[in-house]
Amino acid sequence: IAKEVAKLLEMKAQLGGDEGKHKFVLKTPKGTRDYSPKQMAIRERVFNAIITCFKRHGAEVIDTPVFELKETLTGKYGEDSKLIYDLKDQGGELLSLRYDLTVPFARYLAMNKITNIKRYHIAKVYRRDNPAMTRGRYREFYQCDFDIAGQFDPMIPDAECLKIVHEILSDLQLGDFLIKVNDRRILDGMFAVCGVPDSKFRTICSSVDKLDKMPWEEVKSEMVGEKGLSLEAADHIGEFVQLHGGLDLIEQLLQDPKLSQNKLAKEGLGDMKLLFEYLTLFGITGQISFDLSLARGLDYYTGVIFEAVLLQQENDHVEEPVSVGSVAGGGRYDGLVGMFDPKGRKVPCVGVSIGIERIFSILEQRVEASEEKIRTTETQVLVASAQKKLLEERLKLISELWNAGIKAEVLYKKNPKLLNQLQYCEDTGIPLVAIVGEQELKDGVIKLRVVATREEVNVRRENLVEEIRMRTSQ
Amino acid sequence: IAKEVAKLLEMKAQLGGDEGKHKFVLKTPKGTRDYSPKQMAIRERVFNAIITCFKRHGAEVIDTPVFELKETLTGKYGEDSKLIYDLKDQGGELLSLRYDLTVPFARYLAMNKITNIKRYHIAKVYRRDNPAMTRGRYREFYQCDFDIAGQFDPMIPDAECLKIVHEILSDLQLGDFLIKVNDRRILDGMFAVCGVPDSKFRTICSSVDKLDKMPWEEVKSEMVGEKGLSLEAADHIGEFVQLHGGLDLIEQLLQDPKLSQNKLAKEGLGDMKLLFEYLTLFGITGQISFDLSLARGLDYYTGVIFEAVLLQQENDHVEEPVSVGSVAGGGRYDGLVGMFDPKGRKVPCVGVSIGIERIFSILEQRVEASEEKIRTTETQVLVASAQKKLLEERLKLISELWNAGIKAEVLYKKNPKLLNQLQYCEDTGIPLVAIVGEQELKDGVIKLRVVATREEVNVRRENLVEEIRMRTSQ
Repeated sequence: IAKEVAKLLEMKAQLGGDEGKHKFVLKTPKGTRDYSPKQMAIRERVFNAIITCFKRHGAEVIDTPVFELKETLTGKYGEDSKLIYDLKDQGGELLSLRYDLTVPFARYLAMNKITNIKRYHIAKVYRRDNPAMTRGRYREFYQCDFDIAGQFDPMIPDAECLKIVHEILSDLQLGDFLIKVNDRRILDGMFAVCGVPDSKFRTICSSVDKLDKMPWEEVKSEMVGEKGLSLEAADHIGEFVQLHGGLDLIEQLLQDPKLSQNKLAKEGLGDMKLLFEYLTLFGITGQISFDLSLARGLDYYTGVIFEAVLLQQENDHVEEPVSVGSVAGGGRYDGLVGMFDPKGRKVPCVGVSIGIERIFSILEQRVEASEEKIRTTETQVLVASAQKKLLEERLKLISELWNAGIKAEVLYKKNPKLLNQLQYCEDTGIPLVAIVGEQELKDGVIKLRVVATREEVNVRRENLVEEIRMRTSQ
Repeated sequence: IAKEVAKLLEMKAQLGGDEGKHKFVLKTPKGTRDYSPKQMAIRERVFNAIITCFKRHGAEVIDTPVFELKETLTGKYGEDSKLIYDLKDQGGELLSLRYDLTVPFARYLAMNKITNIKRYHIAKVYRRDNPAMTRGRYREFYQCDFDIAGQFDPMIPDAECLKIVHEILSDLQLGDFLIKVNDRRILDGMFAVCGVPDSKFRTICSSVDKLDKMPWEEVKSEMVGEKGLSLEAADHIGEFVQLHGGLDLIEQLLQDPKLSQNKLAKEGLGDMKLLFEYLTLFGITGQISFDLSLARGLDYYTGVIFEAVLLQQENDHVEEPVSVGSVAGGGRYDGLVGMFDPKGRKVPCVGVSIGIERIFSILEQRVEASEEKIRTTETQVLVASAQKKLLEERLKLISELWNAGIKAEVLYKKNPKLLNQLQYCEDTGIPLVAIVGEQELKDGVIKLRVVATREEVNVRRENLVEEIRMRTSQ
């Protein structure tokens, strides 16, 4: 103890300067959080649903380092590059924390000359954003990515990505949702038709991307005021971005005299039509909307883009519903791998990223609102004793159970009271208690108690494992 | 394409300076690696074995951010602090990547005022060490930690930690292993008895810690030459550190006229005796050795310490066996949480860390050496077609299978050859093929082919899901 106190005082002195009163700040870094066991239990459910879906679609899994060479990330994220976390130059390579899982995936493909893979990757990514944690936005957060790389016939992998989003959002029972779909080629064709100069395509695209958070009038004034677009062009865009629909809208635009003359737009619309045919076969067009206002922020998309949003529930019992943005998004990026290949060889890719943190926020709030009790362990049985001086017998028994694969706990006390042992089961949801007693030991039995019903039966020791398995299977 | 080329040229120009010939380095940062699907499949097996064991012992799970406030890590790791990765000061808080999972765990307990928890945590940690990657040493690597925090009767949680190490190393079938056990209090008592001045306890302890890599003569000359210990004291230590054994050695040292007079050593030996009694009840003393040369590097240990090593196999068919160090280690750290608590309130803790990367290296090498083919997906069935123009029928069928929870794939080609589809199954280990054909469609059946035996049966479409489930269950 003396040594510990000395150490503490030394620490205080180190930190505290003259007065030794420096306040040690006990917190996680801004925009990050710990996950408690209860939160982890909810999160595991969500991960399981997502991984199960990815595996159902035949995906392999890879992992990459949490940091990359700084130059690997350079020039991939447009305006968002300022949000990248850099590591301190401590001698050696210059490193940055990954910003997403897509660029590391493209680097992985180019580095290993892989031209054909279907993989998922679930890992944390890092953005020095202004966190809005109540809305599920953090500086450290998980992404769950599924991507298909390879040269294939058009729109078949793209349709599968949308099917995956549909399956996951349905499985998680998050309520009604809508998956908006568009194509960068249609957007670019639309910009051309509206009279946007080529050099302004990307920046006007960024403005369109803000339509989910800002009204059209504000976006328009940004285009005209800040970005120097003509009022006429902006108004023309304004007409297009109101449009959303299905196959009918695609047909209508394919007939549009101007748009149908634009090569890019025509290509994009043709593929969009094909996509909708495949989505019809999958039976999911009811939740899909071809939406000309969808633009997506990232630079690297080259074809189809999509984003899933949850629709506000009318019968929402939650008092202050979490304001959630998109819960999934993705698209086609046929040029990214080529940016890493020394000879610029391209590997066409399409992928989807599930916005797990927002989904998690919703489910966490739902659990809070309900009375549902979440178990944070899977323990099947507590090994307890009715009398004193039975620690050794408890340890012997629990060792037998562990060796047989039974999930078992014991209180770390020499002589715990039976009541405290039963209370522990109540608190943690352990369904069974195996009670060691002197008489039972003589008789070669263990008393098995069902916590919920208080039923007690004597089970022969050699049958105990089987009995516990039977009573906790389902 | 033109736009992509322009982008590429722009990139090249940015990177390349005058000549546009800058070589873009395509690699992961020093000391890190990607995991391929095959490596991930092996790693998943190992993780599953470890997590199953942790859950069998009733552990909850938590997660903490990958970086911490720099000051959270300050003063916890002694000489190793120089290996901590710092983030660049980009304005805001000063951050460092976590060095282990123990200090974040202690910070978590103090911050949330938790005095009682049994949790596991599996996550990456970061050390700017000189990597020796062939021996499974990296700058980014996983740790699998299990810890028990709380005020309990002595040595019961400590014994459970050793039982866990024993279970995991047995489950993974890594061959013979030995778990060395010692106690910091016994070491300190030993140093006192040998005439080491109090002020040199920690630094002499660091020297002893090198005994697994250096012969005694070198360690001795470090103690005497570099650290200024008397030759007499060093020789005295030299006698002690040769000792290893079981209960008999504990009894012998408890009788040692000098050591038994030292309060710390006596406490430590008493607890060691109790620990061995519990380990006897668990039936695992055959793989446990009380070893006075075990010291462990980290500053924060206060009681029992332990480390598991694999024993070289005699009948090792591997030509160049991987040289592995310890595969698990841990101990008691009763002071660490108190270092974070504003009032210095202590929470006694004991825990174990599984050295997953070394275990993984061994298993990976074993798989390489064997002919074992590792599947990297779980796909149950490939939806194929025998004739052309059946893409739509394939997509309809696979959609039905996905919706029924069947793991299914389809080739992303409009008209793939049957042979290519069968070859894909051979390559990836898919056991079944559901073949759509024109005649079968008319008859309302699907031809189900077993890849291994080439057996083919017609299954009515409404029974297909059940048939696939039956044939791929177990």
